[in-house]
Amino acid sequence: MIIGKVVGSVVSTRKCDNLVGNKFMVIEPLPSMRVSSRIVAIDKIGAGIGEFVLVAQGSAARVGCDMEHAPVDAAIVGILDEGQNLK
Amino acid sequence: MIIGKVVGSVVSTRKCDNLVGNKFMVIEPLPSMRVSSRIVAIDKIGAGIGEFVLVAQGSAARVGCDMEHAPVDAAIVGILDEGQNLK
Amino acid sequence: MIIGKVVGSVVSTRKCDNLVGNKFMVIEPLPSMRVSSRIVAIDKIGAGIGEFVLVAQGSAARVGCDMEHAPVDAAIVGILDEGQNLK
Amino acid sequence: MIIGKVVGSVVSTRKCDNLVGNKFMVIEPLPSMRVSSRIVAIDKIGAGIGEFVLVAQGSAARVGCDMEHAPVDAAIVGILDEGQNLK
Amino acid sequence: MIIGKVVGSVVSTRKCDNLVGNKFMVIEPLPSMRVSSRIVAIDKIGAGIGEFVLVAQGSAARVGCDMEHAPVDAAIVGILDEGQNLK
Repeated sequence: MIIGKVVGSVVSTRKCDNLVGNKFMVIEPLPSMRVSSRIVAIDKIGAGIGEFVLVAQGSAARVGCDMEHAPVDAAIVGILDEGQNLK
Repeated sequence: MIIGKVVGSVVSTRKCDNLVGNKFMVIEPLPSMRVSSRIVAIDKIGAGIGEFVLVAQGSAARVGCDMEHAPVDAAIVGILDEGQNLK
Repeated sequence: MIIGKVVGSVVSTRKCDNLVGNKFMVIEPLPSMRVSSRIVAIDKIGAGIGEFVLVAQGSAARVGCDMEHAPVDAAIVGILDEGQNLK
Repeated sequence: MIIGKVVGSVVSTRKCDNLVGNKFMVIEPLPSMRVSSRIVAIDKIGAGIGEFVLVAQGSAARVGCDMEHAPVDAAIVGILDEGQNLK
Repeated sequence: MIIGKVVGSVVSTRKCDNLVGNKFMVIEPLPSMRVSSRIVAIDKIGAGIGEFVLVAQGSAARVGCDMEHAPVDAAIVGILDEGQNLK
């Protein structure tokens, strides 16, 4: 997984049927992760913009989130507790 | 997923049987995604050149698009609504 | 998928049983793809050196090519038609 | 797999149900691996901060660790014996 | 797949049960592959240090090698014949 910050969201009205009802959040990886690319992830946890989150990528994004049949390759799977030193 | 712009398409007459009938679109990631590589993705949504799209990669490209048995690793899964600030 | 040019092949006599009978082609991605790494892909289509091909990576390489039980992570799934402007 | 050093951990109280009870360790790849990005991995082996570990990524992280239904894409699967020349 | 040279091995006594009995080889990609990162791969073929090998990554590493239930994401699947011009 990587740690990132939720920096925005995007809206798609025309999309695959299995994606209806999902939010697409734009994730900026934490600088200490040294991952340059941003990621668009679905959010099943209820993360808000500005929160630090754990993002799982690949087939993991469909597991354990009732998304087995949705074409998603990244998901927010946890929100980091506040007050941690995210160096 | 990543956000990209459809910048072209390619034609392949000699291909795996399970790919017959699909369009192969060339996707240029949005600069803010900071993904340098272009991607060739199938399109089941009907995206046109110049549109901004959501692309899912890996096994997700075969899920929920009736492509379970096709050798594809990237698919356009949504078309972004116009008027968004895609910074 | 990515678009690349077949630039060579390699021979491996000692290999996993499930790979016997396959050709291993070396693929140079098209410069416009902006993928720096070369890829070794199996070829079920009959691509020749110098041809431009579509390569699928990951689990997609085993799908729809009768390779479900072979340890391959990249496959040539289409040969691009000649005369296209592969900018 | 890659070899890395456990350099920290993060805490997430609000997370997917299937992640409850797991530790999230931050892994710094060994310089000789030439992998720049850090990885957040679950730990089923009991690795401590400062230990050198083997990390498996992708669907492998869910296999053989009783994590088949958890959205994880990286797992510590071994702790390297001390005294090795990890050049 | 990528082509690499076996440059070493690592030993892990404390590891996932499903990894017991496996060797972990360190692979240096061939310069012409233009893959900068080293990879740790299991070896079911019997490759020795200094040999040039084909490495499959991702779920392919578990397929066709009796490793379906082991958390591995890279495997040596072939040893290249000597005398080839590995440019």
